[in-house]
Amino acid sequence: MKIGITGTGSYIPSVIAKNEDFLNHEFLGTDGAKFGYENAVIIEKFQSITGIAERRYALPELNTSDLGHLAADKALQDAGIDKEDLDYIIFAHNFGDIEHGKIQGDTLPSLATRVKHLLRIKNPKCVAYDMIFGCPGWIEGVIQASAFIKSGLAKKCLVIGGETLSRVVDEHDRDSMIYSDGAGAAVIEANPDGGEILGHASLTFANGEAYYLFFDKTYNEGGCSNTRYIKMHGRKIYEFACTHVPKAMADCLEKSGVDIDEVKKIFIHQANEKMDEAIIKRFYRLHNKEVPENIMPMSIHKLGNSSVATIPTLYDLVRKGELEPHGVEKGDVVIFASVGAGMNINAFVYRV
Amino acid sequence: MKIGITGTGSYIPSVIAKNEDFLNHEFLGTDGAKFGYENAVIIEKFQSITGIAERRYALPELNTSDLGHLAADKALQDAGIDKEDLDYIIFAHNFGDIEHGKIQGDTLPSLATRVKHLLRIKNPKCVAYDMIFGCPGWIEGVIQASAFIKSGLAKKCLVIGGETLSRVVDEHDRDSMIYSDGAGAAVIEANPDGGEILGHASLTFANGEAYYLFFDKTYNEGGCSNTRYIKMHGRKIYEFACTHVPKAMADCLEKSGVDIDEVKKIFIHQANEKMDEAIIKRFYRLHNKEVPENIMPMSIHKLGNSSVATIPTLYDLVRKGELEPHGVEKGDVVIFASVGAGMNINAFVYRV
Repeated sequence: MKIGITGTGSYIPSVIAKNEDFLNHEFLGTDGAKFGYENAVIIEKFQSITGIAERRYALPELNTSDLGHLAADKALQDAGIDKEDLDYIIFAHNFGDIEHGKIQGDTLPSLATRVKHLLRIKNPKCVAYDMIFGCPGWIEGVIQASAFIKSGLAKKCLVIGGETLSRVVDEHDRDSMIYSDGAGAAVIEANPDGGEILGHASLTFANGEAYYLFFDKTYNEGGCSNTRYIKMHGRKIYEFACTHVPKAMADCLEKSGVDIDEVKKIFIHQANEKMDEAIIKRFYRLHNKEVPENIMPMSIHKLGNSSVATIPTLYDLVRKGELEPHGVEKGDVVIFASVGAGMNINAFVYRV
Repeated sequence: MKIGITGTGSYIPSVIAKNEDFLNHEFLGTDGAKFGYENAVIIEKFQSITGIAERRYALPELNTSDLGHLAADKALQDAGIDKEDLDYIIFAHNFGDIEHGKIQGDTLPSLATRVKHLLRIKNPKCVAYDMIFGCPGWIEGVIQASAFIKSGLAKKCLVIGGETLSRVVDEHDRDSMIYSDGAGAAVIEANPDGGEILGHASLTFANGEAYYLFFDKTYNEGGCSNTRYIKMHGRKIYEFACTHVPKAMADCLEKSGVDIDEVKKIFIHQANEKMDEAIIKRFYRLHNKEVPENIMPMSIHKLGNSSVATIPTLYDLVRKGELEPHGVEKGDVVIFASVGAGMNINAFVYRV
């Protein structure tokens, strides 16, 4: 049975925050002390490592579920299916709906239910649930949808990844410049003429790595210690990702029975440009190859790291010719790969 | 392939809150006004409908993931499997870890990762994710685990349901007396000599019903409007559950090819005793039968409504002979059924 992606959609929030918008932020170290150099220096270094020049934030009146709905609506139209035929709506996120200016995440009801509500889907047999798996949540949702279809539980699934990270950032943390908002979605179906998931890999490293990404108070000693924000041990994550992601991708490719020279594109989680480049380099080095030109489309320069939303958004842009010179054609083999909180790593090899 | 439950465990928190502990609470209506009668009257009426005489709260130093870990540890021991052989840890909850006295839920990392961390499982191929599906989350986790096993993705899965509802209640809301804390877990495996899931049903009603359970501010006008709590339209939920749950259970039984007279026990979500009795009565009425004696074990009197934790806890107690006169024996057919935020309904028919 060929199980593949029959439609994609994404929603790119409208508020643009440029790097220069952070020039007057008061950035502090983990010890609460100011850095001994200007923000301009911090920002320049930040951009040279992450590649991020600007990022997108959702309008105050939109929550994660709204972004997810907008992406989902496009994916359903693109797939050309009747929304009432959906068996599952799987919404991958990590923080729920966080209203602008508030600090509590709201998952009552689930974001998948909210999307189903907004899409006005009546069929109660369309099961809507949320999934938390760090940034790799959307890929994991695709793997789950694929398992449901394979097991006979479902025929058509909608998998959404959405997040509003701008609402969980500590403005005193330099890492706050990394994060952004967004949503992407795809319809997954058994489809004899369509694409095909050839193999996948999923891993959770929960020993020393479990708290590389964590929730903690602001670096500002005068701030409220009861409010917590997304925090990370960036260097550890970098080393972890460079060690384990290339290997996971290689295992996945081997399981898929595809030669590395067949791979046309790699859609990798947009976390950090230098890190992504190092991962891809090691992946090719494992096969004694040089990295081919234009293998890795990047949206991070303009869109930042929108967590679960990066990969479905990136694939949607490339698939629709909106990220030149990149494109995909029927029959192309591509790899999707991600890494994030958990620490989780996953990948799937896909024939378009 | 027979897929069944090979081990169970539960953790019942140690703090007992009795109904009389609420005598001095200031209960308010949705309009913020006091009721025109004593708390003793409110509590008496509450108990006569819900059946709840006392409920359990977690110790301040324990979070939902800790409760889940304690339940999971027992389930693994009960199943007698090597924890390193687990392919999945699925943690169903709805609010994440909420530290005592704080209002933010923490799902960074996922609670499943935290459990994996606490269990010291090294195998990275044991995939840990969280699932949000309202109170029916644990049953849905079992259905997902079963699909993963059926599709060849997994052999052994650990499914946990845990919650600390005591940390999301508005103390001015009478409904706060319903909610409690707890965790239950089960190991699901393909097992030729063991139990077997015979059929299941899952439904999401997301039109008018999506916000029957919702997150909103306290009824106390002087309270912080930025902090939100679990709230519900109790009467609407009651009517919804009595209309749709019996039908879903009947459909599930029919799909399973089992005669209703074979059913030995029904493990239903412990939400409200009168509602559960009404559901079971209607379920038997659909088959032109009277409700058999002792068909429905109830733990709500002493444990309250601990959301996703009620069913795995109840089954664990009955299975281990800790809720007399109830018990299950090999070969017995039983039904698991739940209803909750989403609004979600699910059920599975199981041969022990």
